[in-house]
Amino acid sequence: MITSLQNERVKNWVKLKEKKYRDETGQYLIEGDHLLKEALKANVVLEILSLEPVEDKTVPSFLVTKEILKYLSCQVTPPSVIAVCKKKKEQEITGAVLILDGLQDPGNLGTLIRSAVAFNIETIIASLDTVDYYNPKVIRSTEGMHFYVNLIRSDLEATLPKLQEKGYTIYTTNVQTGKHLKEIVFPKNSAFIIGNEGSGVRPDTAELATQTIYIPMSKTCESLNASVSGSIIMYEYGREWLS
Amino acid sequence: MITSLQNERVKNWVKLKEKKYRDETGQYLIEGDHLLKEALKANVVLEILSLEPVEDKTVPSFLVTKEILKYLSCQVTPPSVIAVCKKKKEQEITGAVLILDGLQDPGNLGTLIRSAVAFNIETIIASLDTVDYYNPKVIRSTEGMHFYVNLIRSDLEATLPKLQEKGYTIYTTNVQTGKHLKEIVFPKNSAFIIGNEGSGVRPDTAELATQTIYIPMSKTCESLNASVSGSIIMYEYGREWLS
Repeated sequence: MITSLQNERVKNWVKLKEKKYRDETGQYLIEGDHLLKEALKANVVLEILSLEPVEDKTVPSFLVTKEILKYLSCQVTPPSVIAVCKKKKEQEITGAVLILDGLQDPGNLGTLIRSAVAFNIETIIASLDTVDYYNPKVIRSTEGMHFYVNLIRSDLEATLPKLQEKGYTIYTTNVQTGKHLKEIVFPKNSAFIIGNEGSGVRPDTAELATQTIYIPMSKTCESLNASVSGSIIMYEYGREWLS
Repeated sequence: MITSLQNERVKNWVKLKEKKYRDETGQYLIEGDHLLKEALKANVVLEILSLEPVEDKTVPSFLVTKEILKYLSCQVTPPSVIAVCKKKKEQEITGAVLILDGLQDPGNLGTLIRSAVAFNIETIIASLDTVDYYNPKVIRSTEGMHFYVNLIRSDLEATLPKLQEKGYTIYTTNVQTGKHLKEIVFPKNSAFIIGNEGSGVRPDTAELATQTIYIPMSKTCESLNASVSGSIIMYEYGREWLS
C-alpha cells in the first residue's frame, strides 16, 4: 500500500490535475466507480488507485490511503477509486459536429459532451481557448460519455472552412437574424457553434457559419445557459436522426 | 467606509451565506452589477455594499473594502458590488409549473430557473430537500431570472394532489413507459417533475404524476443532465405558447 504523499508515483499522479501535465503525458484522472467502469469498457485505463483490492486484473492497480485519494481528487468527498487514463487520439471528422468557441465553464463542457452523445453528434471541435476536455470537473460532468465521441481541439478559423468544403451546413445562433429552430430541417452533415458563456460566439467565428438559428423564448429572458441552448439545438437535430 | 470584518453589519451580512440565516431573516445576497440592476428593477434591494459610491439613491448604501467583498462573496474573484435583497413572497400557483424533487446542484437549479422564464413557466415548486433557491451559486446561475418567476417551497406529497384538483396535467419522465416528447400536445396548465441528479424522481412523487414523457435519445446515453432534460421539456411546452 502506498501511504506517503511524497511517493514518486503520487507526485506524478497529482500533476495530472494540471492541464500542462495532461498535455505533456496524454494522461488524465477519472474518479469513482461509474467512470472507471466506462473507462475499462473503453479500454483506456492505465492504472487504478484504490482503497480496496481491485477485481479487474487486466490493469496495474495500487492500494492507496484515503489521504492520497483526497490529495488526488477534485471533489469535497473523495471517491474510493481513481484511475489514470490515456486520452483518446483525435479522429477524422465524421457525422454531426458540435463546435465550441471559447466555452469556459467545465460543467457546461461536460454537460454538452453528455448531450452530444445522447443526440447522435459524432464529433466535437473545441477552440484552443475552450476549457480542457480532460479537466477533472469536465470529466465528472460527462458521466463517462466522453468515451463515445470524437474530441478535437483546433483553431476554428482553420477548421471551419474545411467543414464547409466537406459540405457541412454550419449553424450559429442569432436572435435578430436567426431562423426559428422548429422550422429547420437539418441535413445529416450539420455543425453547431456554441459560444462563450458571457460573450457568445466571436464575430470572426460567426462569419464562418452558413446559417443562423433562433431558439424561440420569452422576451423577459435574454439568453439561456450555454449548455442548455447547445443541448436544445442538438435535441432538435436528433429528432431527425433518432427514432 | 466600513473596513473591519468585525463590524456588526459585516457580521450580519456574512451570515446570509448560510441557509439558516436566510430563512430567519428572509434576506439574501446578490453579487455583481448585472444582478443588482435586475434586483433594483424588481424593487427588492435593501442595502448596497460597494467599493465605489453608488448612483442609485433610493436604497441605503455602504462603502466597503475589497477585503469585505471577498469575505462576503462566494466567487474566486469577488465582485465590486454586493447587495442585500429581500426574498419574494410565495404567490398563488398560476400558469405552467416546474416541480423539483430533491434537486441538489445549485448550478442546475439556477439554470432551470433561467430556462423556466425563457419558456413561460410561471411557477416553480421545490421539494423541501431541494437546494435553497437563495443559495449564492443558485442566484448567480439564474442571471437575475429568479425575479420573474413565482418560487414556492413545499411538501410535494401535499401539493401535487392540489395541482391535480386544479386540473393540471402533471408530467414525469420515464424511459420505459413515457410518451415520445414530440408527440405530446401540452395543455396550458402543465406541470413537469424533474428529479434528483443521481436518483431521479422519487417513486412516491412519480405516482402523483398523471402522464409520463420520454426524451428520445441514443441508447449509448443513459440520461441527460437534470437541467438539460428539464429545459428541453420546458422548451417543448413553450413551442405551443410562444410565437
